[in-house]
Amino acid sequence: MKSSAHPKPSASRAKLRVAVFGATGYAGIELLRILLNHPRVSLTVLTSQQFVGKRVSEVYPSLAGKLDLVLQEARVDSLATRFDLAFTSLPHGASMEIVNALVRSDKQVIDLSADFRLHDPGVYEEWYRAHEVPELLGQAVYGLTELHRRELPKARLVAVPGCYPTGAVLGLAPLFAANVVRGTVLIDAKSGVTGAGRSNAVELSFSEVNENFKAYNVGVHRHTPEIEQELSQIARRSVTVFFAPHLVPMSRGILSTMYVELKRPLGEEKLRKIYEDFYQGDPFVRMLPSGCFPETKEVRGSNDCAIGFRYDSRVGRLVVITAIDNLVKGAAGQAVQDMNLMYGWAEDEGLRGAALVP
Amino acid sequence: MKSSAHPKPSASRAKLRVAVFGATGYAGIELLRILLNHPRVSLTVLTSQQFVGKRVSEVYPSLAGKLDLVLQEARVDSLATRFDLAFTSLPHGASMEIVNALVRSDKQVIDLSADFRLHDPGVYEEWYRAHEVPELLGQAVYGLTELHRRELPKARLVAVPGCYPTGAVLGLAPLFAANVVRGTVLIDAKSGVTGAGRSNAVELSFSEVNENFKAYNVGVHRHTPEIEQELSQIARRSVTVFFAPHLVPMSRGILSTMYVELKRPLGEEKLRKIYEDFYQGDPFVRMLPSGCFPETKEVRGSNDCAIGFRYDSRVGRLVVITAIDNLVKGAAGQAVQDMNLMYGWAEDEGLRGAALVP
Amino acid sequence: MKSSAHPKPSASRAKLRVAVFGATGYAGIELLRILLNHPRVSLTVLTSQQFVGKRVSEVYPSLAGKLDLVLQEARVDSLATRFDLAFTSLPHGASMEIVNALVRSDKQVIDLSADFRLHDPGVYEEWYRAHEVPELLGQAVYGLTELHRRELPKARLVAVPGCYPTGAVLGLAPLFAANVVRGTVLIDAKSGVTGAGRSNAVELSFSEVNENFKAYNVGVHRHTPEIEQELSQIARRSVTVFFAPHLVPMSRGILSTMYVELKRPLGEEKLRKIYEDFYQGDPFVRMLPSGCFPETKEVRGSNDCAIGFRYDSRVGRLVVITAIDNLVKGAAGQAVQDMNLMYGWAEDEGLRGAALVP
Amino acid sequence: MKSSAHPKPSASRAKLRVAVFGATGYAGIELLRILLNHPRVSLTVLTSQQFVGKRVSEVYPSLAGKLDLVLQEARVDSLATRFDLAFTSLPHGASMEIVNALVRSDKQVIDLSADFRLHDPGVYEEWYRAHEVPELLGQAVYGLTELHRRELPKARLVAVPGCYPTGAVLGLAPLFAANVVRGTVLIDAKSGVTGAGRSNAVELSFSEVNENFKAYNVGVHRHTPEIEQELSQIARRSVTVFFAPHLVPMSRGILSTMYVELKRPLGEEKLRKIYEDFYQGDPFVRMLPSGCFPETKEVRGSNDCAIGFRYDSRVGRLVVITAIDNLVKGAAGQAVQDMNLMYGWAEDEGLRGAALVP
Repeated sequence: MKSSAHPKPSASRAKLRVAVFGATGYAGIELLRILLNHPRVSLTVLTSQQFVGKRVSEVYPSLAGKLDLVLQEARVDSLATRFDLAFTSLPHGASMEIVNALVRSDKQVIDLSADFRLHDPGVYEEWYRAHEVPELLGQAVYGLTELHRRELPKARLVAVPGCYPTGAVLGLAPLFAANVVRGTVLIDAKSGVTGAGRSNAVELSFSEVNENFKAYNVGVHRHTPEIEQELSQIARRSVTVFFAPHLVPMSRGILSTMYVELKRPLGEEKLRKIYEDFYQGDPFVRMLPSGCFPETKEVRGSNDCAIGFRYDSRVGRLVVITAIDNLVKGAAGQAVQDMNLMYGWAEDEGLRGAALVP
Repeated sequence: MKSSAHPKPSASRAKLRVAVFGATGYAGIELLRILLNHPRVSLTVLTSQQFVGKRVSEVYPSLAGKLDLVLQEARVDSLATRFDLAFTSLPHGASMEIVNALVRSDKQVIDLSADFRLHDPGVYEEWYRAHEVPELLGQAVYGLTELHRRELPKARLVAVPGCYPTGAVLGLAPLFAANVVRGTVLIDAKSGVTGAGRSNAVELSFSEVNENFKAYNVGVHRHTPEIEQELSQIARRSVTVFFAPHLVPMSRGILSTMYVELKRPLGEEKLRKIYEDFYQGDPFVRMLPSGCFPETKEVRGSNDCAIGFRYDSRVGRLVVITAIDNLVKGAAGQAVQDMNLMYGWAEDEGLRGAALVP
Repeated sequence: MKSSAHPKPSASRAKLRVAVFGATGYAGIELLRILLNHPRVSLTVLTSQQFVGKRVSEVYPSLAGKLDLVLQEARVDSLATRFDLAFTSLPHGASMEIVNALVRSDKQVIDLSADFRLHDPGVYEEWYRAHEVPELLGQAVYGLTELHRRELPKARLVAVPGCYPTGAVLGLAPLFAANVVRGTVLIDAKSGVTGAGRSNAVELSFSEVNENFKAYNVGVHRHTPEIEQELSQIARRSVTVFFAPHLVPMSRGILSTMYVELKRPLGEEKLRKIYEDFYQGDPFVRMLPSGCFPETKEVRGSNDCAIGFRYDSRVGRLVVITAIDNLVKGAAGQAVQDMNLMYGWAEDEGLRGAALVP
Repeated sequence: MKSSAHPKPSASRAKLRVAVFGATGYAGIELLRILLNHPRVSLTVLTSQQFVGKRVSEVYPSLAGKLDLVLQEARVDSLATRFDLAFTSLPHGASMEIVNALVRSDKQVIDLSADFRLHDPGVYEEWYRAHEVPELLGQAVYGLTELHRRELPKARLVAVPGCYPTGAVLGLAPLFAANVVRGTVLIDAKSGVTGAGRSNAVELSFSEVNENFKAYNVGVHRHTPEIEQELSQIARRSVTVFFAPHLVPMSRGILSTMYVELKRPLGEEKLRKIYEDFYQGDPFVRMLPSGCFPETKEVRGSNDCAIGFRYDSRVGRLVVITAIDNLVKGAAGQAVQDMNLMYGWAEDEGLRGAALVP
């Protein structure tokens, strides 16, 4: 599992040269924060649509003195000699073309958009639009590390999971793998505002979001098929979920409250064993003690996914709650975790920092 | 329905003299804000446990020049000649004794605590502790106006519903009245922090709550039996719900997302008719247009309850979402609405203000 | 002072017909909230640039059932027969043309933009751009009620002060009137985000503003000349101030901390007398007790301006702090206060509500 | 400067054993987060007043799996053999006794309380209370690294500066060193709520702080003498400042807006040279480009202090604005920076992480 099919940097101490396409979005900037602390990589190319020609530290002063690269236009051909691996953090739809060009240039690619997450182009078209490079879908590894660890060392194109699917699938996968679930799982998810990216939508302005709470895209959110794809694969049957996202007046964090009917009542110990067996050795999944549910703050800025559950015998429902930082385990941190496995490095290299509390 | 069994103030233009016991908690101060604008009442007595001897406007400077009464100790005997109606907004448990003394003094009482909401003393004991004046439980009218309008004119003791039950029951009652619900309803509720009252708990400090989201008391919250009592009464059968409350980093507002299985699929029009028939003429219940769900901000500071729903045929679930301001329709506003009906006044007297947006 | 030169609505019980141009911005929607509770006016015309043809209650669901007017295009000629008084709440620059058309149509106008606040067209041009109707500047009354009460009954065009100038001038005017100030006053002001209006600027998105605090336009903010104009007029000499605004991660409220050098040391009692004499009888200015400074929350949603001060003998500086709600006393509430005086009504008609606390 | 008088851990690869007294306060937990990433130290002892016997990861789940030490009672004698260096992060007043015991046990101590910051016991008594171990005051090095770098290698007791003094003194020190300041400097500071520590005060509850902004302790805050001590030492004369702190509804960050009169006008280039010369080589002080002022978000979670300034020739004032994270450069990060210099390590060891943005 730790072996890797990828060409290593020539000298043993040389660092992998990394490009970030779309470096000034929120997932992009979080990638930079994490990669700056990663001992095995060197950031060599950053692109931006809006800020070409500026230093990244002019756009994000927090990087001043730490990373002062000039932002480039996203031209794969002219930049290709300057990096080995590319993270692409571009809007859905815009990613396809760049990723295709990168793959054709024999680059490894870790893509944070939704463009390569769904294996079936028909499903992609149903929820997004017609896919431009459907032939690439088959090559992409769905980068939820805990589920696809073995595929990553050979991967040339990794599709980093969406933020909501990460929180939901990590909470539900052990149950589907153990084949104990009955009926439709209800996923009532709550996300901080950075989940919508760096946006100028009026609905995301401070005055609208602050002191407000609402649901959106109830039952029709595009992350639904992604969740169903992964759970179906684990369950070896077609799984349907109901997904209802909500917007929380906070910057980071996703809490997913999931309601599950079990085929038969299971005691807490059996349930715990199902989870602990499934996640044995996984450095970032944290099972909470009995009776405890996670809070988003305990994972903010970290790559952790915290999971708590409780079986309610009064109504015969299992409640599973997971917490992640949508920009870390839900995006940039997961992408780095994918990279670590692609290259045979320690899975938590560059990702060991504890959450920023309070 | 508009007739009232209560003694009216003697002169036609005289105002009802009103006392607020527990005036400096959050529901108390909201009562004062509303009652100051009510043309038919005069605030004559305010009590406080913590601030006896201070003017209320010293504790809440927003009232300076508008209400400068001195806060009294909560002694019913010595204060009794100075008011006709008492609102009691005291901690659960502490309310019983005062309410009992008020009733014995022949005062009308509108109680905002949980002490008189449950009709069955056994259920009260199970979820709280042994009730001290169980004989009063039978006299109390559960003050969810939309459900108990007819009982209010004769009421001498009104138990104002809890904030969560208000949002949940208003969203579910029409469905249970129409007998279309199957199985256990799941209520995933999200509340602003004032729902916990004026508290010095570390967990409610700004540094803990801000940029955080969490569930609490999942499946064991004390508002559960209150919701079940009301829905069972409407359904004429024993109803069980699963209730999972969450804490939102905002001050006011409750959004309740409810997942309902129907006995048989129902089209949107039929569902809408069920709601519109049930709430016909109700001034504070607002059904949203098709495809719309409410946000808490649109009811902040108002007595409205906004309701949206969507039937998802893919998974066969009905989602109902309600929004209220926990301190208004979920506490003080509802209490004033109860008063209006007790005294035969216009139901929305003093409660016509629109929400504070943004 | 209570007499009015304006034509009253014909029948004694008829209501004044009011139009709001620019009804869907934040000051506009706040005007609607206030005017809905005003017993002497009837909202008859609303315009919007972005939402023509929609009901205002579709854009702001908080108004559903309370105000369902359809939003019009802002055409003065075709709308003119349908209202007596117009509030114009349009972007700076855009207001000039509409106001001019309204004045030519013999309408009373209360303008909330910056276009008619500065008396000197040269100063306007220096801080904004060339004024299109400089001849109207001389007719406009600067609507800071506490300073220009006598001019309002005769006014046909009122320029509602900016939010920052309101908080700053109310805190400083008594000192300049008493001629006790020396040197440059420093105004360190802090505003909630609605002060920037309903905006889609990325810098005002929740993810950027939340958990952040910053200064902006330090020393160059356009409200500077407005403050200086009013203080100079009171002082009967040319007054220069230094104005440094900051952005607070909250929706509403302005706190202005002002540092003043006095010509000679003054005891607290003398200072208090200066303020109390100046504001005698003013219903919305509230002087705090000794040693107390105001918080923005105590005025949120109300038309109050709370003022506290402290003379520090150690360094010989007077600190004055004022708090207002930028959308009420800093915009819509002040505009209604102006209207009340224009028409000879009680100054606080429609404005008596206490702040929304907490 | 890089030499150190302290005993190094015996083996070259052995880590320094570190205790944290008061590990569960906000500065304590931030120390743990930072020290966990520091390659030269090993956390061996944690104490807590409130949570003795619990694992620190039970109190702060973000540490689960990373740091699971059991919290001890703060008994120096019984713990002394288990650590080399102690960080003390205890309430003011409570720190004295523990620090004294630690010093007598020949431990190096880095104290985050206010107890050893003021050199003059008389000044301490005036602003706090009588000092219990005044003889230790002379031994303590004031740990503002940028000013006292040379004293740190020999230090046995370091007093970590207060959060406000750090932001203020770093912004003003170069000006006083260059002797260009005239008159009283005004410091209008704004802090996030964690500056008050982990507290159960009602005034710091979410419902009170959220959507609110206020000043507090204007002119009488205990950080005043600390600022004056340091500026006086640099200026070689007695310096008086006026300090007005404010509370921002955010968790972390201090923005200090400072108003300075200059002895004579100075161009921006000269001012910039004053700052750049003073901070040459300092890894954590970041001068912003012309016309830019810092925001607190750009330093959140990092040890940086960002400084911007602007000379306003219209009023002849220099405005200097600094931003720090009160828990990092204002507390725990600064303490680690002090440790690095005490032991001759790279000044930024363990402190290189970029701010958490957004």
